[in-house]
Amino acid sequence: MKKQKVTVIGLGAMGTALAKAFLNAGHTTTVWNRSPEKARPLVAEGANLANSLEEAVEASPLIVICVLNYKVLRKIIEPVGEALEGRTLVSLTNDTPEKAREMAVWTQENNIQYLDGSVLVPVPVIGSAESLILYSGPKGVYDTYLSTLKALGGRPTYLGEEHGIAALYDMGMMNIFFTSLSGVLHSYALVGSDGVAAKQFLPFAKEVFAVAGSFLEEFAENVDGKHYPGDLDNITMEAAGIEHILEASRHRGMDVGVLNGLKTVYDRAIAAGYGANGMPSAIEGMKTNGKAQ
Amino acid sequence: MKKQKVTVIGLGAMGTALAKAFLNAGHTTTVWNRSPEKARPLVAEGANLANSLEEAVEASPLIVICVLNYKVLRKIIEPVGEALEGRTLVSLTNDTPEKAREMAVWTQENNIQYLDGSVLVPVPVIGSAESLILYSGPKGVYDTYLSTLKALGGRPTYLGEEHGIAALYDMGMMNIFFTSLSGVLHSYALVGSDGVAAKQFLPFAKEVFAVAGSFLEEFAENVDGKHYPGDLDNITMEAAGIEHILEASRHRGMDVGVLNGLKTVYDRAIAAGYGANGMPSAIEGMKTNGKAQ
Ligand SMILES: NC(=O)c1ccc[n+]([C@@H]2O[C@H](COP(=O)([O-])OP(=O)(O)OC[C@H]3O[C@@H](n4cnc5c(N)ncnc54)[C@H](OP(=O)(O)O)[C@@H]3O)[C@@H](O)[C@H]2O)c1
Ligand SMILES: NC(=O)c1ccc[n+]([C@@H]2O[C@H](COP(=O)([O-])OP(=O)(O)OC[C@H]3O[C@@H](n4cnc5c(N)ncnc54)[C@H](OP(=O)(O)O)[C@@H]3O)[C@@H](O)[C@H]2O)c1
Repeated sequence: MKKQKVTVIGLGAMGTALAKAFLNAGHTTTVWNRSPEKARPLVAEGANLANSLEEAVEASPLIVICVLNYKVLRKIIEPVGEALEGRTLVSLTNDTPEKAREMAVWTQENNIQYLDGSVLVPVPVIGSAESLILYSGPKGVYDTYLSTLKALGGRPTYLGEEHGIAALYDMGMMNIFFTSLSGVLHSYALVGSDGVAAKQFLPFAKEVFAVAGSFLEEFAENVDGKHYPGDLDNITMEAAGIEHILEASRHRGMDVGVLNGLKTVYDRAIAAGYGANGMPSAIEGMKTNGKAQ
Repeated sequence: MKKQKVTVIGLGAMGTALAKAFLNAGHTTTVWNRSPEKARPLVAEGANLANSLEEAVEASPLIVICVLNYKVLRKIIEPVGEALEGRTLVSLTNDTPEKAREMAVWTQENNIQYLDGSVLVPVPVIGSAESLILYSGPKGVYDTYLSTLKALGGRPTYLGEEHGIAALYDMGMMNIFFTSLSGVLHSYALVGSDGVAAKQFLPFAKEVFAVAGSFLEEFAENVDGKHYPGDLDNITMEAAGIEHILEASRHRGMDVGVLNGLKTVYDRAIAAGYGANGMPSAIEGMKTNGKAQ
């Protein structure tokens, strides 16, 4: 593979992993971070530490930025808009589709080529065959830098020209990640309140997690078809189940904000007439803020 | 296997499946339901429909009850306390550990042998090798009826003498089930708002669900050890991620009750000093209703 020049801005846990992967692939890698001491291990592995943000941008035609969110990204990037002219900015910073769409406008005004991307795997997976990164933005730009971006791992995935689409998929995926694992943690805390160690409960947690996973396809069909059969389960029964968990959690002095939110969604779907329908009909209580669809 | 006599009270989706499984195993099965018409298909398969609740109870030494919750269960059971004397009541009705513990007191006062159980699999799995049902209560009672209860499927699991423990595990498991699948539905609705069909998003949903599932063991160790390494991720970054999903969901007019609850938990854990720790430290924001542990 041809050796390329790439700059990585932002050296948190993820930015560091990205820079390392570029280095491992043999690319000339320039790095910059607000707190420069985080660059030290990378410099030891051969990275160039830029003395200023301008220098970082001017070192490479491809600039990858991975910081906390787009507010931070814009605070860093806007002052170096001129230096970025004609270059390609790839954001691997998570935020909303709207933020990526606004950034697309700003980069176009400033003659900067821009892709928005989302890293969908944890730090240790970066650079490996399983690494999944979603991209959206101009196909030509993506094609130009794909060979370089492949250093980050085996599954770069292009979703379309529209800049917001990678972030949209990212929101959808991260929501599943956060919500499901928070559910697991809540359950560990719940059984823990009665003296059951998480390790002891683990086989049961794993089992039910796998069972839940087996429903994703069927639920997708139900949702797309707006067809929610109620012969095997119904959300009235499930709302009663949620109420039990709520009650047991409250009884143990636990936080019940998530469960209250869940109960509200089910109650709203029941009020909208889905009480005898199966679990995917709960989506009818999620779609709007209480307003009828 | 010896033919036994068993009564099933409650013929909703699950109670019907239980009665069918007893019939399939060759047991003499008597059934009762508030709405008697639901018994018709079972009677066609050989079940006896009791003319009254008393008759249902007196027909068998083993009475299995599967109704909406313990409030309904007690409304049905208390008037036939005398008829139940000396018999065994197995509740496969979901509710809190507290409700099972209260029922244990009542049944003891009324000379009724009692097990609380929880069905952890969907209706179609009942009777099959994968069927998982948890039980707690006197071991002797469990051992006496285990061979009969095996008709309900391959994995009856005894958790202990203390009557609340099956419900505790059930709460923990059902919470994971409801929370994770509601997360999936929220994501289907979120991408759906921008015109992406759930089916199109499905491979990504499946992938992230599996990734989340791979963390259950590590999280259990972290929680038991109260040790939350922050080198690969931290809850400050994750709270920013949740904030993005919240913002994107609100922007699309979606319900954000669950996400608000999630954000509160993360913020509380950050306020308690866990901001630089990994995701399992979010549990520190769940344990108490805002009160310090
Ligand atoms: N870690 C993961 O598992 C993971 C997985 C997928 C996606 N991501 C995404 O990757 C991105 C970065 O995450 P991370 O894990 O690397 O987070 P992190 O370790 O907390 O790093 C945050 C980065 O943002 C910078 N930053 C924060 N506030 C700043 C400010 N006001 N001005 C300038 N720089 C600022 C930090 O600079 P300092 O070093 O100077 O503080 C650091 O470079 C996020 O969008 C995250 O969603 C992370
Ligand atoms: N379905 C599942 O996938 C599943 C899985 C695991 C566990 N479970 C548990 O199994 C139990 C029953 O669930 P299900 O799916 O069978 O629910 P269901 O189909 O809604 O049936 C509810 C049952 O409760 C009875 N009932 C409700 N309110 C009553 C009242 N006020 N007085 C008398 N009877 C009343 C109903 O009688 P009528 O027919 O007269 O209304 C019916 O027999 C629940 O605890 C549930 O959590 C279900």
